[in-house]
Amino acid sequence: MKQQFGVLLFPGVEELDFVGPWEMLKMWERFLDGPTCFTVAQHRQPLACANGLSVNPDYDFADCPPLDYLLVPGGMGTRLEVDNIVLVDFVRTQGARCRKVLSVCTGSFVLHRTGLLAGRRATTHWGSLPRLRALGDVQVVEERYVFDGDLWSSAGVSAGIDMTLPFIAAEAGEAVAMKVQAGAEFFPDGRRYGRFGDDPRAPAYLRP
Amino acid sequence: MKQQFGVLLFPGVEELDFVGPWEMLKMWERFLDGPTCFTVAQHRQPLACANGLSVNPDYDFADCPPLDYLLVPGGMGTRLEVDNIVLVDFVRTQGARCRKVLSVCTGSFVLHRTGLLAGRRATTHWGSLPRLRALGDVQVVEERYVFDGDLWSSAGVSAGIDMTLPFIAAEAGEAVAMKVQAGAEFFPDGRRYGRFGDDPRAPAYLRP
Repeated sequence: MKQQFGVLLFPGVEELDFVGPWEMLKMWERFLDGPTCFTVAQHRQPLACANGLSVNPDYDFADCPPLDYLLVPGGMGTRLEVDNIVLVDFVRTQGARCRKVLSVCTGSFVLHRTGLLAGRRATTHWGSLPRLRALGDVQVVEERYVFDGDLWSSAGVSAGIDMTLPFIAAEAGEAVAMKVQAGAEFFPDGRRYGRFGDDPRAPAYLRP
Repeated sequence: MKQQFGVLLFPGVEELDFVGPWEMLKMWERFLDGPTCFTVAQHRQPLACANGLSVNPDYDFADCPPLDYLLVPGGMGTRLEVDNIVLVDFVRTQGARCRKVLSVCTGSFVLHRTGLLAGRRATTHWGSLPRLRALGDVQVVEERYVFDGDLWSSAGVSAGIDMTLPFIAAEAGEAVAMKVQAGAEFFPDGRRYGRFGDDPRAPAYLRP
């Protein structure tokens, strides 16, 4: 049986946090024999993302197949979801059996609440780095993405795309990652607008 | 009244084609006084994107407000939509009154069908460059994004993100683009997997 990859959704999930990885993962699935990838949320009903996009999850927690991979995106919704014991239990239970668990942006705060992040290296959106550090038991790394064994985490929003490519390379090889990168034409021009790297809040990987 | 920015959806639209720009545009709207941004499709009912994500459009063509900006994403669905006269008429009519019209990936083929691209500089996904050239009346430019007056177009899928930042910079200034870029933490690491740039099908901007 094909491996199963769940992408967690919840009200207030940041759109690009999950659609960036989703695009890469579905290319892996559809053209390169990657895991079967689908969305899962607590309720199988329309859900409003952080910026208002309305999406319909494929599965709810009850009918979600056992997962081999789980991706937890971020967004303002995580501020509430860390206190949603049903969601945290779902992530804890499914995550414990997963081959790999990934977070994007403030999704790392949801992972933390399950206990999966204790003592591990992880990151989050630059604006939430002080909050992640304040939790006290996470080794916060100010890089674009970081992995620690079976846990992968990325910085904010679009950083999930950057994380997904080395993740696919690790799971399926560089040649597969190359085809996914080409399919999504992910060759950014790297242009920087203004000088955010000079801002004291900028993450270490951006500072001069 | 605020300016109105419509993001076109249709069955088979590629997810990242529209969510990449959407993320940037909504940050501009929500935090930096940008245009009011929403999705619009022929029918106001759930719609399956190219990779199976199900989304609910904000407006249908009949109730869509007059637009100041219109973004036309791509995806396999464009192969059918170029022959959908209701959709092509919507893009032509709304596009004619827009301050700017943008396309991502194979969205340029929809724009072409309206007549808006005739004699203009434009681009598309690398895999569709020969098809765009074969149309005969488009000046095909193999760059990550290109603008020609009020028409902006980008290369494939993720290139829409790259296009949206200079677009915002052009409309609202570099300082606003900087804040949007930082908000979405769009500072890709630029890593290339394999050597797609050596492929004869690679777009000019990637070739050595």
